[in-house]
Amino acid sequence: MVVAVLGCGYWGPNLIRNFLQSPEVETVIACDIDERRLEAVRQRFRWIRTTSSPKTALTDPAVHAVAIATPVASHFELARTALQHGKHVLIEKPLTRRTCEATELIALAETKGRILMVDHTFLFTDAVQKLKELLLCGELGEPLYFDSIRANLGLFQPDVNVIWDLASHDASILLYLIEEPPITVSAVGIRHYYELENLAYVTIHYDSPFLAHFHVNWLSPVKLRTICIGGSRRMAIYDDMETSEKIRIYDRGVEIASKEGEEQLRVQYRAGQMYAPPLPNQEALARVVQHFTACIRTGQRPISDGLLGRAVVALMEAAEESLVYHGKQVRLQPEHVTYSTSLCLSS
Amino acid sequence: MVVAVLGCGYWGPNLIRNFLQSPEVETVIACDIDERRLEAVRQRFRWIRTTSSPKTALTDPAVHAVAIATPVASHFELARTALQHGKHVLIEKPLTRRTCEATELIALAETKGRILMVDHTFLFTDAVQKLKELLLCGELGEPLYFDSIRANLGLFQPDVNVIWDLASHDASILLYLIEEPPITVSAVGIRHYYELENLAYVTIHYDSPFLAHFHVNWLSPVKLRTICIGGSRRMAIYDDMETSEKIRIYDRGVEIASKEGEEQLRVQYRAGQMYAPPLPNQEALARVVQHFTACIRTGQRPISDGLLGRAVVALMEAAEESLVYHGKQVRLQPEHVTYSTSLCLSS
Amino acid sequence: MVVAVLGCGYWGPNLIRNFLQSPEVETVIACDIDERRLEAVRQRFRWIRTTSSPKTALTDPAVHAVAIATPVASHFELARTALQHGKHVLIEKPLTRRTCEATELIALAETKGRILMVDHTFLFTDAVQKLKELLLCGELGEPLYFDSIRANLGLFQPDVNVIWDLASHDASILLYLIEEPPITVSAVGIRHYYELENLAYVTIHYDSPFLAHFHVNWLSPVKLRTICIGGSRRMAIYDDMETSEKIRIYDRGVEIASKEGEEQLRVQYRAGQMYAPPLPNQEALARVVQHFTACIRTGQRPISDGLLGRAVVALMEAAEESLVYHGKQVRLQPEHVTYSTSLCLSS
Amino acid sequence: MVVAVLGCGYWGPNLIRNFLQSPEVETVIACDIDERRLEAVRQRFRWIRTTSSPKTALTDPAVHAVAIATPVASHFELARTALQHGKHVLIEKPLTRRTCEATELIALAETKGRILMVDHTFLFTDAVQKLKELLLCGELGEPLYFDSIRANLGLFQPDVNVIWDLASHDASILLYLIEEPPITVSAVGIRHYYELENLAYVTIHYDSPFLAHFHVNWLSPVKLRTICIGGSRRMAIYDDMETSEKIRIYDRGVEIASKEGEEQLRVQYRAGQMYAPPLPNQEALARVVQHFTACIRTGQRPISDGLLGRAVVALMEAAEESLVYHGKQVRLQPEHVTYSTSLCLSS
Repeated sequence: MVVAVLGCGYWGPNLIRNFLQSPEVETVIACDIDERRLEAVRQRFRWIRTTSSPKTALTDPAVHAVAIATPVASHFELARTALQHGKHVLIEKPLTRRTCEATELIALAETKGRILMVDHTFLFTDAVQKLKELLLCGELGEPLYFDSIRANLGLFQPDVNVIWDLASHDASILLYLIEEPPITVSAVGIRHYYELENLAYVTIHYDSPFLAHFHVNWLSPVKLRTICIGGSRRMAIYDDMETSEKIRIYDRGVEIASKEGEEQLRVQYRAGQMYAPPLPNQEALARVVQHFTACIRTGQRPISDGLLGRAVVALMEAAEESLVYHGKQVRLQPEHVTYSTSLCLSS
Repeated sequence: MVVAVLGCGYWGPNLIRNFLQSPEVETVIACDIDERRLEAVRQRFRWIRTTSSPKTALTDPAVHAVAIATPVASHFELARTALQHGKHVLIEKPLTRRTCEATELIALAETKGRILMVDHTFLFTDAVQKLKELLLCGELGEPLYFDSIRANLGLFQPDVNVIWDLASHDASILLYLIEEPPITVSAVGIRHYYELENLAYVTIHYDSPFLAHFHVNWLSPVKLRTICIGGSRRMAIYDDMETSEKIRIYDRGVEIASKEGEEQLRVQYRAGQMYAPPLPNQEALARVVQHFTACIRTGQRPISDGLLGRAVVALMEAAEESLVYHGKQVRLQPEHVTYSTSLCLSS
Repeated sequence: MVVAVLGCGYWGPNLIRNFLQSPEVETVIACDIDERRLEAVRQRFRWIRTTSSPKTALTDPAVHAVAIATPVASHFELARTALQHGKHVLIEKPLTRRTCEATELIALAETKGRILMVDHTFLFTDAVQKLKELLLCGELGEPLYFDSIRANLGLFQPDVNVIWDLASHDASILLYLIEEPPITVSAVGIRHYYELENLAYVTIHYDSPFLAHFHVNWLSPVKLRTICIGGSRRMAIYDDMETSEKIRIYDRGVEIASKEGEEQLRVQYRAGQMYAPPLPNQEALARVVQHFTACIRTGQRPISDGLLGRAVVALMEAAEESLVYHGKQVRLQPEHVTYSTSLCLSS
Repeated sequence: MVVAVLGCGYWGPNLIRNFLQSPEVETVIACDIDERRLEAVRQRFRWIRTTSSPKTALTDPAVHAVAIATPVASHFELARTALQHGKHVLIEKPLTRRTCEATELIALAETKGRILMVDHTFLFTDAVQKLKELLLCGELGEPLYFDSIRANLGLFQPDVNVIWDLASHDASILLYLIEEPPITVSAVGIRHYYELENLAYVTIHYDSPFLAHFHVNWLSPVKLRTICIGGSRRMAIYDDMETSEKIRIYDRGVEIASKEGEEQLRVQYRAGQMYAPPLPNQEALARVVQHFTACIRTGQRPISDGLLGRAVVALMEAAEESLVYHGKQVRLQPEHVTYSTSLCLSS
């Protein structure tokens, strides 16, 4: 298989490295309109082919698949061109800036019979796969809430706010783990330095008694990467900053006894064992590449396909609208956020 | 000084213990309508006087001051009666259920020339006093955001939701630390067990580019007590679960260089020293009692006076209204939230 | 039962408080030769009887049991007098300064048919009881090593070095948990301020491939209380500074495959689950008092009886001798360190 | 400069990568007697020259410098040959198995006027350089003790015990930081699986009231990398497992007031601020390579020269002897451990 990687900035070289290590990939072509970046790529991967013409990369009949790691604004045009030329497409998150663009790409991929996959890398971590498994097998019981914090210092993006940058990770994890479609989104944020929010809170509402909330922050003194999932049977905390024991499962919860009057409310606490399952610790991006090439080979639907990618975009778009209206709840189109996510990577 | 403590449930005995240790207090009278609680109090503090009649305690001419630690719904009536009989009043947080009730108590205390103080215990911790000092002396620069998490397992309250129970702490700290009056409040929450929210997020908006956010949760597998204050010069994290080094100050921040185009955005990070100042570690409630008796003696205004207590109630009331309207921003009356908080305990 | 508590310095009042709360104790008599301490005791426990004459307390026929919380040097004389007058004796750790003194007390207690128990409080914690249970039921497999760190700042003792002060805790835990008798002891230490060691390392050797090591330190910038027990099946870490999850059990270990040459050494690692069992969190000293009164009532042998107390003294004495000879291994008398510790508190 | 790297097992490829990135290095030749390893190296660094003949690498007149990353037993022969052929030598820690071998290499390097440097990588970390700076400028005051823990699971070495493997790191750090020469060494350890110790404690004694102690363990359920240095003015903790704030400095200590009798001992504690200085976070091995090439260019003495390398070997050798004699104190030859370490990397 010949793969072209478009965009050789921060993430592109990681894709190149992993495609080069894939046994299913014979040749990797690196593409960037900035010649200095291509030079850096050639320094690091000396045997690699490069081109500064995206058009060449996208239309070359020898190329089977294209990985797009360019700024978000260019995703749609590049992916459309690639699909039109019959290429399979792996695309950086978020899939597009607009939900309607995502819809068009999904339709095009289907028409052309090509794989459209979004590189929501976190879904391919051991930790998220373990959480999916815990939810699927009922270990956590009914999900009650999803609370995430994603904070660090700096790494301000010039073209998208902190929601598109960081909350898109949490959105992909939430949408992958929780099968019920969200109903509305609200978001508040603040801009301290320029006209994009650098701190924001996003809330996602559901029909059932389940609530999701993301805290995303480019201006935190410490790096935080925490997701807590409360379940009716158990609760899980995923702390990505831990070097081992990234996931801890707590056999803790509350039981409310039958009450006749407010004063007689009987709440019983269960504070049982905590355990941390062992996690293999494979590089997530290696799994992304492996899953992408396997899907191309087998025709299998990727776990982070266009539908999941579109749902993330729909959430982000709704959050952005809510920001403008000071936290107003923005309703999601059911067709944009409904799809099945019932698979673990291993199934 | 003779002090009557009304309510001998969870918090009352702590007040009794501290009043008994105060050199300014000669006699403590414990009052509760439940005889079993009085019996327990007599067991623990054998020389104490008790009464099951609040009326006796509130009207006894020998009593100089009353401490009210009863359910929130009873605060207003009890405090009003006490003030009408010329007692100084220390009252558990929150001051009242309604802002208008708080206003009436404030006016009554002024008319009667009596101290009205709210037991917002956290304001009297070494940690919050240190944060106040850091803000007053400019160590943190301009405040940019206030983010708090207050979560634990269980301890569901039968009469108030998690916002009144937990966020009232954060509200008092926020209002004490940040001098600018808040403008609007929004809140979202969820009820998993009965008709009161057990998980909620509260956002407080200001005129300046400053944002405050509270995450309060009765259904967390772990106990969390964290406040992060981002400032333009430095940032502080107050982690109350730490046994030492509860406060850490980070010389970290961001500088945005002049930019001409989106692509040229220049962000510079400053990642300097972190330090943890030593904190004395005195019991906060001992300081509450000491401050209360000192204010009675000197006529000095308490740092947690009726005005601050009312501002907390106004915030909670607005948050409750916002909950009903799914996170709608509820505007605060400027007169309810404006007052000076420029004093440290030591000044 | 009437109990006399001798010594009202730091620990005595804790004993008084717990004896007062015991349903089996009718009267507590506090005794100290320092009148100011007795005054402080009367302030705190107003209904208590006090005496400044140890002789009175030790010989009063109304007294059934005596708790000795005086400086170590006085333990032997006081305990001997108490036993001679037919009192049951609970004595602060360490039992005595010399092993021969401990032997005499053990014999005397047996002759008189009285309980002699040492207040090795740590044995009565949930954590140590859980460790004992894990070892008894084979959860950890064969014990391989015991490594403890007990460090804090200050709290220098005027009469005993850091080994007698801190390592006596670790010795009692080690001797309680590990049934095999230790063979030799070595210790090195250093004195920075006066003629007693403030930092020391103690090593205890066994016949089997098991090693114990204590690091005790009065001059540590942070407080540390950690015990790691390596077992052939699992390993446990007991961190007493954790507020929850004080014990963590790791399903981790090593398997060495059959090797033919040095180069072919095959080591396989097992890195399985970690779990933290729930612990009830009762006050250990309350259990000490409960166990002592139960042993008096039933005649049952205490889990921290004179034999275990003597073994601790023998270890400390050997460590002290080793210190003088720069870490020389000092042999223990088998009769001083052999006894059964096969019981959990609950059995 | 042409550099030959001998040994392409675990560490060799890291050296190759760093030499390839050095601007002072034109060509790197990789050498290993195992052809499969050379193949792996060619896969990763496609433009590299390789040879399976150490002799070729060591004698090739085009080669200026040799880096030796082979098993310890072969260090001496390879380094001697390299020096005899006029090559500069960088050698993995430990320098040799025997002190006398180290002495011969030092003499040979001097005779030949070539650089002999040991890759004690930890000395080149930001953390150790910061500790050196703190000690040099008196920030910590007089050093009082050095306590290190280096523990992990597995990684058993087939040819050397845990002391040679892990304690050699601590020894290099100790010898670099503390200028006073150590006097004696004692060590105890235990073998659980085969005839090499997998858990050991090493104590190093000095003439002044200073003590060093290493705990090294291949059988720990968790990975620990901690060094605590107690000083008369301040204390420092270096925790290499922290992702940020690896070094914390505590303004804590003890002052003993003049005492007339044991009972009157007056100890005052100082519990001041803790701070964590920012550390640049450069790869230590990159600095090793940079320092090595700079020393070749300028003739400057490396901070981890043969003398320091020999002192480490002398300590390890003494510890090994002490192990045999059950912890006996083994005296060090003053000429083996005396040398100046007064330089920071930056000076």
